[in-house]
Amino acid sequence: MVMTLDKIMNAETVAVIGASRNETKRGYQAIRTLLDEKYEGTIFPVNPKEQRIMGLKCYKSLHDIDGPVDLALITTPARSIPAVLEECGEKGVSGAVVIAGGFGETGLQGKVLENEILAVANRHNVRLIGPNTSGLMNLKRNMNLVGLRDVPRGNIALLSQSGNMALTIITEAKLRSLKGFSYYIGVGNEADVKFHEYLAFFQEDPDTQAILMYVEGMKDGRKFLQQAYKTSRTKPIILLKSGRSSTGRRSAGSHTGALAGISEVARTAFQRAGIIVIENSDELFPCAETLSSLPPVRGNRIAILADGGGHAVIAADLLTDFGVRIPELSEKTQNLLKRILPPGASLKNPVDVAGGTDADPTIFAQCANIILKDPAVGGLLIVGLFGGYGIRFAESLALKEEDAAHQMGKMVTKRNKPIVLHSLYNSEKPHSLHLLRYYGITVYDSLDVACKCISVLARRGSYLKSYHAKTNFVLNWGQKARSEGRRIISNARAEGRSVLLEHEAKHMLHLHGAPAFRDRLATTGAAAIDFAREVRGPVALKLVSPDILHKSDAGGVKLGLKTDDEVGTAFAEIIQNARNFNPDADVRGVLVSPMARSGVETIIGTKTDDQFGPVIMYGLGGILVEILKDVSFRVLPISPNSAKKMIEETKSAPILDGVRGRGPYDKAALRSVLLMCSEIIESYPDILEMDLNPVIVHERGVSIVDARIILKPAGETSYPEPS
Amino acid sequence: MVMTLDKIMNAETVAVIGASRNETKRGYQAIRTLLDEKYEGTIFPVNPKEQRIMGLKCYKSLHDIDGPVDLALITTPARSIPAVLEECGEKGVSGAVVIAGGFGETGLQGKVLENEILAVANRHNVRLIGPNTSGLMNLKRNMNLVGLRDVPRGNIALLSQSGNMALTIITEAKLRSLKGFSYYIGVGNEADVKFHEYLAFFQEDPDTQAILMYVEGMKDGRKFLQQAYKTSRTKPIILLKSGRSSTGRRSAGSHTGALAGISEVARTAFQRAGIIVIENSDELFPCAETLSSLPPVRGNRIAILADGGGHAVIAADLLTDFGVRIPELSEKTQNLLKRILPPGASLKNPVDVAGGTDADPTIFAQCANIILKDPAVGGLLIVGLFGGYGIRFAESLALKEEDAAHQMGKMVTKRNKPIVLHSLYNSEKPHSLHLLRYYGITVYDSLDVACKCISVLARRGSYLKSYHAKTNFVLNWGQKARSEGRRIISNARAEGRSVLLEHEAKHMLHLHGAPAFRDRLATTGAAAIDFAREVRGPVALKLVSPDILHKSDAGGVKLGLKTDDEVGTAFAEIIQNARNFNPDADVRGVLVSPMARSGVETIIGTKTDDQFGPVIMYGLGGILVEILKDVSFRVLPISPNSAKKMIEETKSAPILDGVRGRGPYDKAALRSVLLMCSEIIESYPDILEMDLNPVIVHERGVSIVDARIILKPAGETSYPEPS
Repeated sequence: MVMTLDKIMNAETVAVIGASRNETKRGYQAIRTLLDEKYEGTIFPVNPKEQRIMGLKCYKSLHDIDGPVDLALITTPARSIPAVLEECGEKGVSGAVVIAGGFGETGLQGKVLENEILAVANRHNVRLIGPNTSGLMNLKRNMNLVGLRDVPRGNIALLSQSGNMALTIITEAKLRSLKGFSYYIGVGNEADVKFHEYLAFFQEDPDTQAILMYVEGMKDGRKFLQQAYKTSRTKPIILLKSGRSSTGRRSAGSHTGALAGISEVARTAFQRAGIIVIENSDELFPCAETLSSLPPVRGNRIAILADGGGHAVIAADLLTDFGVRIPELSEKTQNLLKRILPPGASLKNPVDVAGGTDADPTIFAQCANIILKDPAVGGLLIVGLFGGYGIRFAESLALKEEDAAHQMGKMVTKRNKPIVLHSLYNSEKPHSLHLLRYYGITVYDSLDVACKCISVLARRGSYLKSYHAKTNFVLNWGQKARSEGRRIISNARAEGRSVLLEHEAKHMLHLHGAPAFRDRLATTGAAAIDFAREVRGPVALKLVSPDILHKSDAGGVKLGLKTDDEVGTAFAEIIQNARNFNPDADVRGVLVSPMARSGVETIIGTKTDDQFGPVIMYGLGGILVEILKDVSFRVLPISPNSAKKMIEETKSAPILDGVRGRGPYDKAALRSVLLMCSEIIESYPDILEMDLNPVIVHERGVSIVDARIILKPAGETSYPEPS
Repeated sequence: MVMTLDKIMNAETVAVIGASRNETKRGYQAIRTLLDEKYEGTIFPVNPKEQRIMGLKCYKSLHDIDGPVDLALITTPARSIPAVLEECGEKGVSGAVVIAGGFGETGLQGKVLENEILAVANRHNVRLIGPNTSGLMNLKRNMNLVGLRDVPRGNIALLSQSGNMALTIITEAKLRSLKGFSYYIGVGNEADVKFHEYLAFFQEDPDTQAILMYVEGMKDGRKFLQQAYKTSRTKPIILLKSGRSSTGRRSAGSHTGALAGISEVARTAFQRAGIIVIENSDELFPCAETLSSLPPVRGNRIAILADGGGHAVIAADLLTDFGVRIPELSEKTQNLLKRILPPGASLKNPVDVAGGTDADPTIFAQCANIILKDPAVGGLLIVGLFGGYGIRFAESLALKEEDAAHQMGKMVTKRNKPIVLHSLYNSEKPHSLHLLRYYGITVYDSLDVACKCISVLARRGSYLKSYHAKTNFVLNWGQKARSEGRRIISNARAEGRSVLLEHEAKHMLHLHGAPAFRDRLATTGAAAIDFAREVRGPVALKLVSPDILHKSDAGGVKLGLKTDDEVGTAFAEIIQNARNFNPDADVRGVLVSPMARSGVETIIGTKTDDQFGPVIMYGLGGILVEILKDVSFRVLPISPNSAKKMIEETKSAPILDGVRGRGPYDKAALRSVLLMCSEIIESYPDILEMDLNPVIVHERGVSIVDARIILKPAGETSYPEPS
């Protein structure tokens, strides 16, 4: 896969299909740009009506070209694409970039056409980029198929589903940084080549140091996560996912919880895969610039160096919001700073030079040096007026600022700790700030952006450190369990059911590690009484019928039954209620279950998400889930560490540590239930969703009071298997 | 008050005390700037050692000056200030700006000095600005006492507690807008003149249209809120309050809830007073620029006009996050747009021109005109490339963009609906964007900032609309209640207590409208049994002792007692437990109370905040308050509308509408309790805090199960009375 992409991304020969002499046509602009930017390979214009275009020989068809064609840029309209791709296939072209829109993004008819071109491409082994893309660029080889000029070259790979956002990011890079791009790819509709494949390519590409992504929707989120998890180990991935609110609108009308849930799933899943998720588009390029230029912050600890109070206070607020610590500096560090700063200076952190740099801005470098030597400090944020001393006070100070810039630049390399700078004078473009950028120190005129940038360096540092704890977790509770589990599912299928009955679902849980359930299925009142006696305590009676899924609504549930009489009466009532509710219902009997001991109610459920496949949800039961939506999500499978974090990250988690003299409750047992769900979902692609509600957590152990498992419609049983 | 400030802010004569010939001294720079900027009034340098400074006659002391001095700029060190102010007082100076630091901000010793200078100033009727200020500017009169040059003139008044933040904002105004400032005031320590007084002055100032504030801490938050409430009716106030995290650090160690609570108090209180609260410093000046230039959005409904998908999607997400609605355009509007846009265009909202403006950017103005005519639309956000068509495609398009700008500018005035623009080409400074600014249309290169700016216009529109519903609410449940209430407090004071006993507190509540409590104080077991019989139902027994406040910890609470035996035993146990807990405790007896009916538990409490005076907190009881911190706050007094909102804005509010077949619960009764608390706190400045916990809300009525009232230390009984 990566091999094929390599041939496309580094194409030696490009055919432009739909080549044109009309300046307003894409088929003209593409060739013009390739020529102007001095593409290193060979260009073959293709147009049956032309002889020569811009001095190049024009071919009537691909077949007329001697030698191989690596890449075809197709600029013709949507309806022509199937035939053009046939020709590409016959010629043995490796990849085709389809610019035209009018496919899946426009509705059903377009979707049919998209499937058609995909089938042609697959048949001929032609990889397809797009359709509905602005094109691609390989900036090392000057292969610019987009028509946008003066794109700065550098080590960031840019993947975007919006041409405008790509233009925004490239413009920002050009105007405000020394950074640039290794590749740009307009990902388009992902009909064939998908996000994860580009990611795998960039992982291997020696010229790419960071990957910047603007995503509106993803065709295969699951494979993307798996790839991102690998890629982010060596190269930072910075991603902005938009379409939250339109997703919201599309989801409106679907059932409660799905809305917030699914976007929350995406965010958590991205972060778990090591991706830096950005919410604010102003921060997207700066974060990529910073992550591709500077070492990560170790230990999540940052120092702030300021030449005025206001900026320092705001920076401290923001960094605290971002979860970064601002530790007090060591006594040694404070003493060293004291020697070079005036009496009014604050030395703890934030450090405020209190005018100590006014006459000599090299004091900034001296302070930075002292601060970065402090082992408690993982990185430095400088805020205020640096870069403007030469403008504001005296021109001679500009030289001192430049000296300080050189010193700080070398300091970053020597200490392997980052410095990020906020400067009020950034837009005046003083030379000292240019020097800082030359050394990789990033500079912003927005205090908010500067704070965000150093905080993502801290997040990256923490992620890399925790990486080793996150080995892929594989449960293997035995093939025997699986074959028995498959039998339960086949039985249900044989009866034409897509829902497991409660006792079947509980049997399935037991096969995968849940403690034995003491539930018994009674078909007569006498049997129910016998079973209830065995329990030696109050029991619950619950209707079992494949035709009545909402048992409570049908009067099919009776709780806390103590005497034989109560049990006998309840049995009869439940059967009668079921008949009244649905006379044709297939009533299999009544499940007799012991009443669970008291404890904390939780809910565990799994669903199958369109983008990410199976996901798991956990929350404390009752109003906390229903009204406060205090739940956590993960894409399955999960590791023991994830199970632990899922429980910890709900706001109500402290309840499990005990309240009002009860508890603490058995979190270890609860984690086992989460892992068991993960194992079950991984074992049976048949399962669409699973609900354990409630799961009561005791001081020792848990009780799974009710369990429901719903199967996918027969025939739809595969999802991308986790690798 | 405003009169005096007027004489200071528009001073005809300024004495510079500490005038100097040394260029590095403030006493030099101030005079230099006043001369260079052509101050309209008279400057009197004062320095006993000099004859002339910069061509001006220098005076040995203020007494040597003929005629009145309106304002003294004092540049001498902290220790000299008391004597200098004496001289100012003797001379009859109206106001003094004290630059020096070294006062309250440095600790106790500085605080003593600050009190000293305040006393001198008060004695002589000299109003004090600062100390610890960067100075002030009246830009209309060219009275620049700060030394910062080239400050753009305009209609925004700037109040800042950080010189750096003021510099940041002024720089931004100069580089990126056509706006400027009417006044700048470095507020400093607020020893004498406080935020609310400046606000009152700007409210009357005809040259000020908006007030921009950077605040780190406030001396009298309560008066500020009262003034802001009046001022914001006619002039928008835009405020950034920093120091959240350092406040956090200071508050650490104080009791739970205070941390998040108090900053939440500030935010809610500011918003209620009509202030636009900004959290992100990048948005501070742009929001002020927009609010001072454009009409508010009516109806909270905004349309988005884009020339590309990506920006539109991000803008829709952000506006949705900001709580703004993006309504579908009417069929009529869509049909009109259809006529001028190509077939691929999106017409609903966001409107995407789909290339329809590429050849003719005046189409933007045509679209804007159609959209703003739609009555469902209150304002328009244009995102994308406008301003760059002339740069990107053909120079001739620049003229069409300029034409479009003129059209749109006039449109805003005609329709009285705002347009805000995001342009990727803003930093290239095309003339069309300059034209837009000339008409008051604000333009940003940050999509996030542009979205924020139009959203604050919507917030302002909604605030002004709801204003009339927010009349000042005055409860008057009778003087009789108050005199009886004062007696309860005096009794406690007479016994040297600062805590009301439970039955006293409940009596107080009853005086102010709570239903009669059926609690009785029993001093013997027999009396307790008699009282319990009267209740006809289970009772609670609770210890009453001024020396044992945490009754439960001392074994002083017994619940759900049904029989005579149970009551008798419980009485004896409580008395014994109290003796064991504290042999010296003054035990007054045991309170016999009926057990409350079941319902939803809530907690209501009041506290006295350092900055804002009395505040009230409400939340659903138990884990929701203790663990999830799901509470709402208001500064007291509150209106019925605020009481309603306090209940609605907690996340757990839907519980009161009923869950699991119970409810809905009596929200009207709950509101009455909140209002009663407001009334009580307003009636008795003696009360420090009050806790009603729990207040059980029934389907009909409420039960206040426990009540505690704590008094301020004797002698500290006044806080600023609400006006």
